[in-house]
Amino acid sequence: MARVSQEHLDARRRQILDGATRCFARSGFHAASMQDVLREIGLSPGAVYRYFGSKDELITAIAAEVFADVRAAFEAAAEQSPPPPPDELLAQVVGQVIEVRDGLRVGGRAAFPGLVLQVWAETLRDERLAGLLQQGYADMRGAWARLVGEYRAAGLMSDDVPADHVARTMIAVAQGFIAQQALFGPAPTEVVRDGLRALMTMGQRPVA
Amino acid sequence: MARVSQEHLDARRRQILDGATRCFARSGFHAASMQDVLREIGLSPGAVYRYFGSKDELITAIAAEVFADVRAAFEAAAEQSPPPPPDELLAQVVGQVIEVRDGLRVGGRAAFPGLVLQVWAETLRDERLAGLLQQGYADMRGAWARLVGEYRAAGLMSDDVPADHVARTMIAVAQGFIAQQALFGPAPTEVVRDGLRALMTMGQRPVA
Repeated sequence: MARVSQEHLDARRRQILDGATRCFARSGFHAASMQDVLREIGLSPGAVYRYFGSKDELITAIAAEVFADVRAAFEAAAEQSPPPPPDELLAQVVGQVIEVRDGLRVGGRAAFPGLVLQVWAETLRDERLAGLLQQGYADMRGAWARLVGEYRAAGLMSDDVPADHVARTMIAVAQGFIAQQALFGPAPTEVVRDGLRALMTMGQRPVA
Repeated sequence: MARVSQEHLDARRRQILDGATRCFARSGFHAASMQDVLREIGLSPGAVYRYFGSKDELITAIAAEVFADVRAAFEAAAEQSPPPPPDELLAQVVGQVIEVRDGLRVGGRAAFPGLVLQVWAETLRDERLAGLLQQGYADMRGAWARLVGEYRAAGLMSDDVPADHVARTMIAVAQGFIAQQALFGPAPTEVVRDGLRALMTMGQRPVA
C-alpha cells in the first residue's frame, strides 16, 4: 500500500474543516446534521471520521481556528510600535477580524462574525473550549495592557486607573462591534473609529 | 367547567417561561431536550403545550424577553437628563444588564449574560428573532444618538463625526462587556468605567 504524503493528509484535513465551517456558518452548529456536514464536504463518512471522530470534535477544531484567527488580529494590532491611537487601532482590528476568511459567505454576507458569535455560545457549554478561550484572552489582555503602557509613556493617556481595565475596555469595543456586524449586518469600520474618536475628546488630556 | 382566571393563566405562563429559561441557561437551547425542559418546569406536557406549541415557540418567547430586558436597561440609562458622562453611564447599563434576573444562576454564577450570548447565536438562524432584535437596536441607537446630542449641546464632546457612530460605539462597549462577563466570568463594572475614563483623556477637549 502506498504511503500517503503529509501534504495530502493536511489538504484533506483542510478540505474537511472548510466544508464543515461553511455548513455550520450557514445553519449553526446544532441545526446542521452530520449528514449536512458530510454533503458539504463532499467526502465519504469513512474519510471524514478518519480525521474527526465526531461532530463535537469537528466543532472544537473549528472553534479553535476561530479563536486563533481573532487572537492573531488582536495581537498583530498590539505589536505596532509606536501604536496608532485607540480609534485607529480598533478600526484596524475590527477590519481584520471581519475580513478573516473573506470567502466564507452566507446569503452574500461575510459569515465570520456570525461564526464568532456561535463559537461564543458554544463555549458556554464546553469546558475545553472555555479553557482555550480564557488562555487566549489572558494573552490578549497582557498584550493590550502593554499597549496602554506605551500610550502612557508617551503622555497620551491618564494613568490613574489599572492598565488592565483599559485593555479590557478596548477589547470590549472590538467584541461588541463584531457582535453588531453579525447581528445587524455589515457596517464600515469608520463607525467605531469615529465613535471612539469622539469619546476620546470628553476627558481632560493629561499634561505630558 | 369552571373558568380559569386570567391571573392563573398568566402565572402558569410565567412558571413555564421561568423553568424553561433555567433549563436553557444551564444547557443551551439545543442541548436541552424538551423532556429536560418539561422536567424543570414541573408541569405535564399537555399543560405546557397549551401555552407554547413547540420548543421553538418557547425559545422565541424567551429570546423576546431577553431582548426586552436588555433594551429596557439601555433605554433607562439614556433617559437621564443631563446624562452622566459615558464612563458612568456605561457602567450603569452593564450593571443593570448583569443584574437582570439576579436569581437566574448556573454553577453559582449569574446566568443572564450567557443567555444573551445564546440568544444572539439563535438570532442568526431565526428571521423572526432577527427582525425583533433589529427593531430594538434601531430604537436604542436613536435614544443613544439623542444622548450624544446632549453631550454636544453641553460642549462636552466634539461634533465632527455622526452622532449615530458614537451611539453605536457606546452600545458596542456594553455589548462587548456583557460578552466578557459570559465568557470569562464576573468582572466589576468599575472595569468598563475606568477603561472608558482613561480612553476619554486621549483626545483634545472641544472648546465649549
